[in-house]
Amino acid sequence: MSQLTLTRKIALLFFICTAPIMVFAQTITSPDKNFTAQFSLDANGVPLYQLNYKGKAVIKPSTLGIEVSKGASFMDSFTVTNATQTSSNTTWDPVMGEEKTIRNNYNELVVTLAQAKNNNRYIRIRFRLFNDGLGFRYEFPKQADLSYFVIKDEHTQFNLAGDHKIFWIPGDYDTNEYAYITSKISEIPGLQKKATIEINAQQPIPNPSVQTPSMMKSADGLYINIHEAGLINYPAMSLNVEPGFKLSSHLTPDAVGNNGYMQTDTQTPWRTIVVSDKATDILASKLILNLNEPTKYKDVSWIKPVKYIGVWWEYFVAGKSTWAYGKENNVKLTDDFSKLTPNGKHGATNERVMRYIDFAAKNGFDAVLVEGWNVGWEDWIGNWKEEVFDFVTPYPDFDVKKLNAYAASKGVKIIMHHETSASATNYERRLDRAFQFMQDNGYNAVKTGYVGQIIPRGEHHDGQWMVNHYIHVAERAADYKIMVNSHEAVRPTGLNRTYPNWIAQESARGTEFEAMGGLAPEHTTILPFTRLMGGPMDYTPGIFQTDLTYYKTGGNQRVNTTLAKQLAYYVTMYSPLQMAADLPENYERFPDAFQFIKDVAVDWDNSYVLEAEPGDYVTIARKAKGKDEWFVGSVTDENSRTATVNLNFLPKGQKFTATIYADKKDASWNKNSQNYEIKTVEVTSKTNLKQFVAPGGGFAISIRVKK
Amino acid sequence: MSQLTLTRKIALLFFICTAPIMVFAQTITSPDKNFTAQFSLDANGVPLYQLNYKGKAVIKPSTLGIEVSKGASFMDSFTVTNATQTSSNTTWDPVMGEEKTIRNNYNELVVTLAQAKNNNRYIRIRFRLFNDGLGFRYEFPKQADLSYFVIKDEHTQFNLAGDHKIFWIPGDYDTNEYAYITSKISEIPGLQKKATIEINAQQPIPNPSVQTPSMMKSADGLYINIHEAGLINYPAMSLNVEPGFKLSSHLTPDAVGNNGYMQTDTQTPWRTIVVSDKATDILASKLILNLNEPTKYKDVSWIKPVKYIGVWWEYFVAGKSTWAYGKENNVKLTDDFSKLTPNGKHGATNERVMRYIDFAAKNGFDAVLVEGWNVGWEDWIGNWKEEVFDFVTPYPDFDVKKLNAYAASKGVKIIMHHETSASATNYERRLDRAFQFMQDNGYNAVKTGYVGQIIPRGEHHDGQWMVNHYIHVAERAADYKIMVNSHEAVRPTGLNRTYPNWIAQESARGTEFEAMGGLAPEHTTILPFTRLMGGPMDYTPGIFQTDLTYYKTGGNQRVNTTLAKQLAYYVTMYSPLQMAADLPENYERFPDAFQFIKDVAVDWDNSYVLEAEPGDYVTIARKAKGKDEWFVGSVTDENSRTATVNLNFLPKGQKFTATIYADKKDASWNKNSQNYEIKTVEVTSKTNLKQFVAPGGGFAISIRVKK
Repeated sequence: MSQLTLTRKIALLFFICTAPIMVFAQTITSPDKNFTAQFSLDANGVPLYQLNYKGKAVIKPSTLGIEVSKGASFMDSFTVTNATQTSSNTTWDPVMGEEKTIRNNYNELVVTLAQAKNNNRYIRIRFRLFNDGLGFRYEFPKQADLSYFVIKDEHTQFNLAGDHKIFWIPGDYDTNEYAYITSKISEIPGLQKKATIEINAQQPIPNPSVQTPSMMKSADGLYINIHEAGLINYPAMSLNVEPGFKLSSHLTPDAVGNNGYMQTDTQTPWRTIVVSDKATDILASKLILNLNEPTKYKDVSWIKPVKYIGVWWEYFVAGKSTWAYGKENNVKLTDDFSKLTPNGKHGATNERVMRYIDFAAKNGFDAVLVEGWNVGWEDWIGNWKEEVFDFVTPYPDFDVKKLNAYAASKGVKIIMHHETSASATNYERRLDRAFQFMQDNGYNAVKTGYVGQIIPRGEHHDGQWMVNHYIHVAERAADYKIMVNSHEAVRPTGLNRTYPNWIAQESARGTEFEAMGGLAPEHTTILPFTRLMGGPMDYTPGIFQTDLTYYKTGGNQRVNTTLAKQLAYYVTMYSPLQMAADLPENYERFPDAFQFIKDVAVDWDNSYVLEAEPGDYVTIARKAKGKDEWFVGSVTDENSRTATVNLNFLPKGQKFTATIYADKKDASWNKNSQNYEIKTVEVTSKTNLKQFVAPGGGFAISIRVKK
Repeated sequence: MSQLTLTRKIALLFFICTAPIMVFAQTITSPDKNFTAQFSLDANGVPLYQLNYKGKAVIKPSTLGIEVSKGASFMDSFTVTNATQTSSNTTWDPVMGEEKTIRNNYNELVVTLAQAKNNNRYIRIRFRLFNDGLGFRYEFPKQADLSYFVIKDEHTQFNLAGDHKIFWIPGDYDTNEYAYITSKISEIPGLQKKATIEINAQQPIPNPSVQTPSMMKSADGLYINIHEAGLINYPAMSLNVEPGFKLSSHLTPDAVGNNGYMQTDTQTPWRTIVVSDKATDILASKLILNLNEPTKYKDVSWIKPVKYIGVWWEYFVAGKSTWAYGKENNVKLTDDFSKLTPNGKHGATNERVMRYIDFAAKNGFDAVLVEGWNVGWEDWIGNWKEEVFDFVTPYPDFDVKKLNAYAASKGVKIIMHHETSASATNYERRLDRAFQFMQDNGYNAVKTGYVGQIIPRGEHHDGQWMVNHYIHVAERAADYKIMVNSHEAVRPTGLNRTYPNWIAQESARGTEFEAMGGLAPEHTTILPFTRLMGGPMDYTPGIFQTDLTYYKTGGNQRVNTTLAKQLAYYVTMYSPLQMAADLPENYERFPDAFQFIKDVAVDWDNSYVLEAEPGDYVTIARKAKGKDEWFVGSVTDENSRTATVNLNFLPKGQKFTATIYADKKDASWNKNSQNYEIKTVEVTSKTNLKQFVAPGGGFAISIRVKK
């Protein structure tokens, strides 16, 4: 560990850079020397940073600053009163993850910046440079003249070196469920309107902007991913897109237009820039997790991976079933729901749930999610209504005690569902009772939902208040030893390290859209580079019934993948919580393909990103946690290809049996999508498989030691 | 009971009125025939009403209407599809109150108004005409084409017959703690700025407006009080003041500018107009209580009157004590408060609280309020901070278990204090834990506080969201058998009938302002006609130490009453919760005067308003609940007077001993204020006492059967 302390009395160092003369500059390098990051201060006392990778500019000199609502801002007039460099190289073991052990290796620069004109009020900017990129954040230490302040805006620039290709969704304070657009950065303003498709409860940012994680590729082959880590007590950041390939922070405002309420000692989340000349390195990066704080939970033994099925997908199937029990379209929590007129299609009935429990037990699933179990679904959406659900009252045809006892007798858990309809206030005031109800009835996991406009009214899904809400729910759930899977929450930023019971999130356009207009075949070749950079996604794969006309939306509705590709997702879309989303009866039609879902692990010792190109393809192999079993998944976009699966990650000198679940030659995402073939081959660590992938297709492989 | 149903097929009745030709009109009278109220519909289908008393116009024809955010409003194009008249004459017994039994006697008119152009969507307007005034409300029945709607504005007019004298405070969405102004209605616009004195976390209405309860007196001697009853799931109403003595409803908006989120079957609160030619009738009116719904609580045996002292007033005394424990000015709930630097002045110490408990036990008080017992007071105010208090963590020098055990051993309760700092979200998410903590430790009553800007940010103390919050707290408290005394909440509207554990509120400029600049001597001759019309007030009287220089604010600071007037408040300021607010050591200096506070009842069989003139004087007698004891209180403004106390309410033929606590001749609010005299006289029901009252003074009498 090296340490260098500078004071204003020390002679200032001058560096040559593209910006005007700097009155201070200091550079750090990554442990492997591939990166250099420079902090500098210009003649006006404005802080800047820049980032190079293998001699190429990734971020050109970019200003840093925080604008405050009242009083002086942290924007300029700074002097450097201290600059300290340290190094760290440690490892840690996540509770669940893609790797059993994660290395955390970086060089750090902490610059203390004081404003003489404001009673020497000071902040710190902390840079951590890893072998896979840069993280930095603003810190506001406790000090005599700074206790409370309100953030009006953050002015962090990311001045890119060129007009990169970018995989993006438009900036929005309330939803991440847009379809990805691939364009040049310069094309974003022209495409913004088209990209802003209609989504429930959206609040698009008016100016050209994109959400993070934002994935880019430069003309000279650099892959660049910008996101944030450790989003706590701060609004989520989108990126303004300004001329000259300049991106800058755009925070989510609150109900009165402020961006954040701060009390020292405090800090912003980390701003992260993951960079490599290999796309596979981006997917393998653990930079965001490393920048999150270790968990403070003392006991994590109750946090476990979950493979589950659920009474859910059938709600999208034509003529099948509904969340709601009654025919009425105007109900209140004070109503007697047993007096409603049954609509005859209620999904979460005792009989139906027992059928799912039987199927789960028979096929080795851990749990059954049941949506539509509780009163309030008759008119739950679109009315900005506060008291929609109470989270403790079942419909008359759902017997909580009986069903949990039945599930327990079969070794299966029921997953609780708490749709909040975005009425977070209502959820918080009932949260303790809801979790106590879960504990009393044997539930240990909850799927939360935030569909609709947020209450407190005027707040947004991605604002500071809601960011704190999701964390409050996760922490309170931990008090009851409950795992959380949140849907429609702010996109993740690696907080599953700190709150490991927050095991997965949706926070993107997930499989449900296959039943509501379809997803582009390339969608799942982009998600690992964008949404999944922040953390595990409950993508809810495993849809075997890909036929036309099966779904409620009708028309050209179909699932835009091959069946084999659905199997690949269990490996390519990392999550310790994985659903087999289709109906039991659909799985029973394809028992040989279903075998892969039964076999595949959901927690891992090691992961190997074998091939990847955002928008084109992803091939990943993983070793099951604590087992000599390996699984491979590979997906492609609308183009057929031949994947290369180099099995050199297998132990040397042993023979293995690989079962390959692959597209047939005539399969594609929009024709013969259920045509797959299963073959078994002997492999070793020297095997280099070449595997056909159909248009919009994929394949999955399970590998076991040969008996 | 008479009933008359009209349909459109019935020939329409025409009435002569001051407005244009009406296409429909119907009149009801009060049971005693003194009032007539007319509903009418003009040629545009706009509904109107008017009110006369003993042949005098009280409300001239005034429009009624509700404006809706999206779609058609409930303003015009109505036809009357039904008009039904009924009568009711019943009695009911409040859990606690000024009367053991309350008569509820009215004639009712319910008009059903349909809009043909909106698929015959309909509303109802319900009028109840009592012998003491009118109440009416809008009702929105459940119907096919009307489930959810958002209120943009309410347009209820109160067109007064003249330029009345009015006792008013300016309209404000967040505070009721203004000093009263007496002026003509026409003078309000010119006085608005002066009236809007600085108060913490205020949000004055920009246009000329006044708060309710609004007390007026006409040139020809009519007393008129406008307020509302049953404020549930709706924002509080202020009154716009428009030229021509026209008042109109002004609702408190939410964070996004809407006024209310409605779901049928629903209704507005009642708009109330209490009228008499005798001021005493206004104070005796039970119209507002009668318009509230009976309680749904099955068991009310745990709801009891409370006479209490508290560690509170000393926080205003110079050099005495503080809510906060630490010297620091930047703390977080996550801090270890035992590591703070003690400021040496913390009030809620074990020793000090035990001193109060001893004093309470010795003098027959039910309870001791303790403020400043819990961590977070070091920087609790002014930062719009969400997580200020957790409601369960005491300061290191306050031992919850020990003190509650000590109190219990002495037959005294400790009253919990929950200052929320207006962070209602934080309070709601911790409410169950806070109430459980209270139950576990033997507390049965809580004083809540809402000092500051509301969180959810953008909401207001008087908006729909907070109105529902206070009720949620009251209902949840009832689940734990806890009584609530709320400070800085929306002003009451008779909800103590429906939620009888919500036993008192502050919601006005209370005694604390005697220590922060002083109250006008007339203040407490106005409050019974304004704030107290809505319900019991925790006015916290009983300040004996009225000296200059005693209080922290210093300067000309003093308590602007005589000592005897402080005794009178226990009778004139009705509440089943009454504090003796001064310090034990101050009471010990005046044991003979203190005897009245020890003796006075706080719950009543009967009340007799003997004399009253708003702004001038109030004399009230009351009979103790279930006891042959009577108490009289009388207060005056800055003018000396001779009060007449006619004791004809006493049982005939018996002799009684009256102990009179009165001002000495040389006493006044700003000189010799502690000069009182106590005398005992024999009285009967034929006695007509004449009693001197000093400037800013008052007197109190206790009457017992002569032994």
